Amino acid sequence: MAEVAKQDLLVGVDLGGTKILTGVFTSQLKLLATAKLSTKPERGFETIVSRIARCIRDAVDEADMNIRQVRAIGIGAPGAIDTESGEVIFAPNLRWKNAPLKRELEKALDLPVFVENDCNVCALGVHEVELEGKPKSMVGLFLGTGIGGGLILDGRLYGGFNRTAGEIGHMVIEVGGPKCGCGNRGCFEALASRTAIFRRINEAIKGGSKSILPEFLKPGEDLNDLKSGDLRKAIRKGDKLVEKIVEEAAEYTGIAIANLINILNPEYVVLGGGVMDALADDMMSIIVETAHDYAMPGTDQGIQIVASKLGDQAGITGSAVLARRASKN
Amino acid sequence: MAEVAKQDLLVGVDLGGTKILTGVFTSQLKLLATAKLSTKPERGFETIVSRIARCIRDAVDEADMNIRQVRAIGIGAPGAIDTESGEVIFAPNLRWKNAPLKRELEKALDLPVFVENDCNVCALGVHEVELEGKPKSMVGLFLGTGIGGGLILDGRLYGGFNRTAGEIGHMVIEVGGPKCGCGNRGCFEALASRTAIFRRINEAIKGGSKSILPEFLKPGEDLNDLKSGDLRKAIRKGDKLVEKIVEEAAEYTGIAIANLINILNPEYVVLGGGVMDALADDMMSIIVETAHDYAMPGTDQGIQIVASKLGDQAGITGSAVLARRASKN
Repeated sequence: MAEVAKQDLLVGVDLGGTKILTGVFTSQLKLLATAKLSTKPERGFETIVSRIARCIRDAVDEADMNIRQVRAIGIGAPGAIDTESGEVIFAPNLRWKNAPLKRELEKALDLPVFVENDCNVCALGVHEVELEGKPKSMVGLFLGTGIGGGLILDGRLYGGFNRTAGEIGHMVIEVGGPKCGCGNRGCFEALASRTAIFRRINEAIKGGSKSILPEFLKPGEDLNDLKSGDLRKAIRKGDKLVEKIVEEAAEYTGIAIANLINILNPEYVVLGGGVMDALADDMMSIIVETAHDYAMPGTDQGIQIVASKLGDQAGITGSAVLARRASKN
Repeated sequence: MAEVAKQDLLVGVDLGGTKILTGVFTSQLKLLATAKLSTKPERGFETIVSRIARCIRDAVDEADMNIRQVRAIGIGAPGAIDTESGEVIFAPNLRWKNAPLKRELEKALDLPVFVENDCNVCALGVHEVELEGKPKSMVGLFLGTGIGGGLILDGRLYGGFNRTAGEIGHMVIEVGGPKCGCGNRGCFEALASRTAIFRRINEAIKGGSKSILPEFLKPGEDLNDLKSGDLRKAIRKGDKLVEKIVEEAAEYTGIAIANLINILNPEYVVLGGGVMDALADDMMSIIVETAHDYAMPGTDQGIQIVASKLGDQAGITGSAVLARRASKN
């Protein structure tokens, strides 16, 4: 067993609508082990809490450690969070409303628990472990099924008046554009998320365009069952339709980033999420070029636009950072 | 002569491409007197500096005070400012590049001078004198010939990495939309500024729409010579075309504000500038309704969207606030 002082471990939890991912870290943020469970939101709040607790115990066991060596637990949860009380105010993917996550998980594990929005902890993780010199300002932008963001301003997570800042996916960039899940039209999320990319490919195929993507489908599946990695595969095989639509998503992303540079002028913009993890090679150069094109002259000097390398560990890493910061206070 | 202790006065300067406006304030920000001069940017930097100095002396004299009673001078200038050195890095309206405004004006008047971006000082003025309880976060949005903004975050002016944050006018909200002065398309400024409103009215008239605006023109003038107040007059006289285009500008403004609420979640959004000063009665209800429509559910709770009542005194007031804050350090 590795030498770890009592109560020196941190646990980061990435709670999604589909799966729970947990990671055990040293206080220097070295990842020792992970565990994964499906979320099963249909079973209700109490069951999810006990599944999170089990997944935490599994990761600690996997690391050959004891739960009593854990100092604190951080959780990134999808939705609006009351970070003071640790309540999840509203999380449609989990079917939760006013769910006392901190209280119940602290009861289950007898350990301090800290809860934040999932995109906020991802931004925190990227800021803490990926960026040299910990820049004062950073926007984390996460492209997956949806699009979310997290803001680091003056070196700290910025939440704003209702603690909901960073809803970058619902910035309207094309008035009258395609319908978004939020009910509006032309949101960035409705133009460049994985869902939006597949919707546009689907529409093009129905309109007669050729693509090899349908060949990837198993019986009974439709295009919505495919993943960002399938887009990459299709592009590698010369699929011009997929290439074009992914490039357009990259252009929209560049415009969204230019808007953020014009408004917030952050030192870093860091991109992550499933779409970026799979397609950074195809999208980043277009994103960076478009962002500089659209930013006001002079405002973008020295600003770095980069892809995160944390992949699906961004959530557990950021949650561990949250646990470390919060348990220091 | 009023009782004012030695060096207890503040001077605020609103430096625009067309006119210089100066105001003398007590340290409690009571306005004692103002003065105005045309800028005459074609005469070059040194002449403008001496015109600013003259306009300051005029206002002090108007207030029956002596320049030796002034503690500090604040200036809001249009463009990118290095607030440390007080240099105006780039101000196309003034034809300036790397203009040492602070240094030269301090030489001319032998008094401390502090320089900031004009929209930033307007935001500072609104925040300091108009809002009760000085909210932690506020966006000031100024609609005039162009559109600019200033951000107060955590109670302080926020400048970002290059000190250019708040370029809200160049947020793209309609990809592929009308051409903007910055070279891009679909910027908020190209859709809702005074210039954009008159351009759209002009296009509609050329397309055969009826408007009474051309009746307001003096010989040799065209629509671009008219002011925001003429739009109000036309609406009061029942001009349906002007009413419709002003309402559309209000909708675009509401969408831009929803974007800011989604991204930054400020406690207050305060609107000012010539367009708002003239047309707040016609635009505000549409702006507020559209902003709440487009903000993500739950994010806009309790957020106030209001029109500033400072009118064209926002600049001198904010510059006086800047002078007070900076000369305290």
